Amino acid sequence: MHRRQFLATGAAMAAWSVTTFVPSWAQNAPNLGTPTLPDPGFARQKVGDMEIIAVNDGVARRPLGEEFVRNAPIGEVKAMLASQNLSTDYIDIPFTPFVVVRGSERILIDTGLGEFAPPTAGKFVANLAAAGLQPGDITQVLISHYHGDHINGLRKRDGSWTFPNAKVHVPSVEHAYWMDDAKMAAAPEGLKGAFQGARRVFADMPADKLVVFEPGRTVLPGIASIVAFGHTPGHTLFEATSAGQVFTYLADLTNVPTLFARNPDWAVQFDMDAEAARKVRREMLARVAASNALVGGFHFPFPAFGRKTPAGNGYAFEPVA
Amino acid sequence: MHRRQFLATGAAMAAWSVTTFVPSWAQNAPNLGTPTLPDPGFARQKVGDMEIIAVNDGVARRPLGEEFVRNAPIGEVKAMLASQNLSTDYIDIPFTPFVVVRGSERILIDTGLGEFAPPTAGKFVANLAAAGLQPGDITQVLISHYHGDHINGLRKRDGSWTFPNAKVHVPSVEHAYWMDDAKMAAAPEGLKGAFQGARRVFADMPADKLVVFEPGRTVLPGIASIVAFGHTPGHTLFEATSAGQVFTYLADLTNVPTLFARNPDWAVQFDMDAEAARKVRREMLARVAASNALVGGFHFPFPAFGRKTPAGNGYAFEPVA
Repeated sequence: MHRRQFLATGAAMAAWSVTTFVPSWAQNAPNLGTPTLPDPGFARQKVGDMEIIAVNDGVARRPLGEEFVRNAPIGEVKAMLASQNLSTDYIDIPFTPFVVVRGSERILIDTGLGEFAPPTAGKFVANLAAAGLQPGDITQVLISHYHGDHINGLRKRDGSWTFPNAKVHVPSVEHAYWMDDAKMAAAPEGLKGAFQGARRVFADMPADKLVVFEPGRTVLPGIASIVAFGHTPGHTLFEATSAGQVFTYLADLTNVPTLFARNPDWAVQFDMDAEAARKVRREMLARVAASNALVGGFHFPFPAFGRKTPAGNGYAFEPVA
Repeated sequence: MHRRQFLATGAAMAAWSVTTFVPSWAQNAPNLGTPTLPDPGFARQKVGDMEIIAVNDGVARRPLGEEFVRNAPIGEVKAMLASQNLSTDYIDIPFTPFVVVRGSERILIDTGLGEFAPPTAGKFVANLAAAGLQPGDITQVLISHYHGDHINGLRKRDGSWTFPNAKVHVPSVEHAYWMDDAKMAAAPEGLKGAFQGARRVFADMPADKLVVFEPGRTVLPGIASIVAFGHTPGHTLFEATSAGQVFTYLADLTNVPTLFARNPDWAVQFDMDAEAARKVRREMLARVAASNALVGGFHFPFPAFGRKTPAGNGYAFEPVA
């Protein structure tokens, strides 16, 4: 790659970085090493008559700065990391979409970064293949919100659809927000890339591919959506039930649970309405702890499946074996 | 009772009849006999670490008229009833609130008619006592919507609170609609009683007793609300989960399932937005059939607990043993 191409790519990536968690790999950053990617990059769980597959898209290593937790001194953040034997220099942020396999349906929840990823991510399609599925097998895609790591994988650089046979279900409130030209015009510069990203993916999506649903309602038989506005204006969770067993997808209710489930009052820099996000984080964590539901989170440590149990002022994440 | 008092009471009841399903007992109606009330009037189900108690408030017998199913010829309605060995002269409509017993919590879902009931209803408090609980034991009340049979029991004729120790959780959209004076002024006469009823119950409810929640969000730990607008503007369902087991309260998603689950496209006269109600009825019935969740419905035949299974163009209700 020529230096000019590299710089252009770097600039493009920087424009995405607020919403895609792309780390500072293209910038002058201290060498923090490379995150370990899960191998194999998928994990299966049986839930009633469904199989849920966690399919890792990769991991981004992000230097820990003052800005990452908005409302806590960095010393407290580092102490929390150290208490869990984690590095205090960086945060490893995994990206994990889930696939619900049920009868002939293959329902993908969020997409990963697709062809718009740093070198340690964009692995979803390869890991999906390792799990025995091809993109053409996906029948439905459910989107929690429009940050780039959740939608970029819907569409390739050449404009073609990654999942050509899938309908794409999006929360009405989220779609309306990001597709609103007036809101884009009024947005701070750092957020404009996310508006452009939503347009790249959705602006000319055919009407028979796009399904806009009302958050809080049923999306598909057996699959509920849950209002969790705050992280973004229309941030929405999903809950799949089969034969009385439950899988709750928590999307970005927390970023890494080591910080934000342990201390639900902490706000990650990406929470657009920190107060609303905090309220729904407390509500939902209490709910899934009470129900003992199997939960999955987009930024949870792989296998990204587990349960939430009360711990101190917040919740621990107990991964399944 | 003097004749004048009786007439006054009759007129007051008639004003409530649209929303409370009070039958024509105060009017000149053919003698259709009296519905059989369940005895005992309660039934228990274990769901994870919770116990759910269905507590019957009574049954109203309603002569079957052309208006009951808005969009079907009465011949088809009668054929559907006859096919299930039910009378074609009347509909028996039960009223069944549920109590979730979980640790020290006693969470009541909807209230029944309280002291504003025809002779064959208003039995909730007596049946609650038969199940071993007093009104003062109730710690929380969840309200699905503001039709009188769901809220009247919150408050006695003398203005006192039936459940003095309970907070009352109401859907924001529903509360805003019925408490809006402009909407009351613009409402057709037949609906004004329901607006007045909402005011009787809620107008001076103390702020520390009333909790307004956003439909689609978590209401209490382990208890979700589900957007099901249509039957009323803010009609909301509840789903309680414990140890991976699920109880879904379907409120007025259907009136009697013998008609409206068997044929989800039929609209009961009480559905305020028939098209929206039909859409969410189809969605939710498909969801609870797929999940095989234990469901409860306010107007389901006692014990009001059961499961939905596909049948013909709709769903059968299979009561639990």
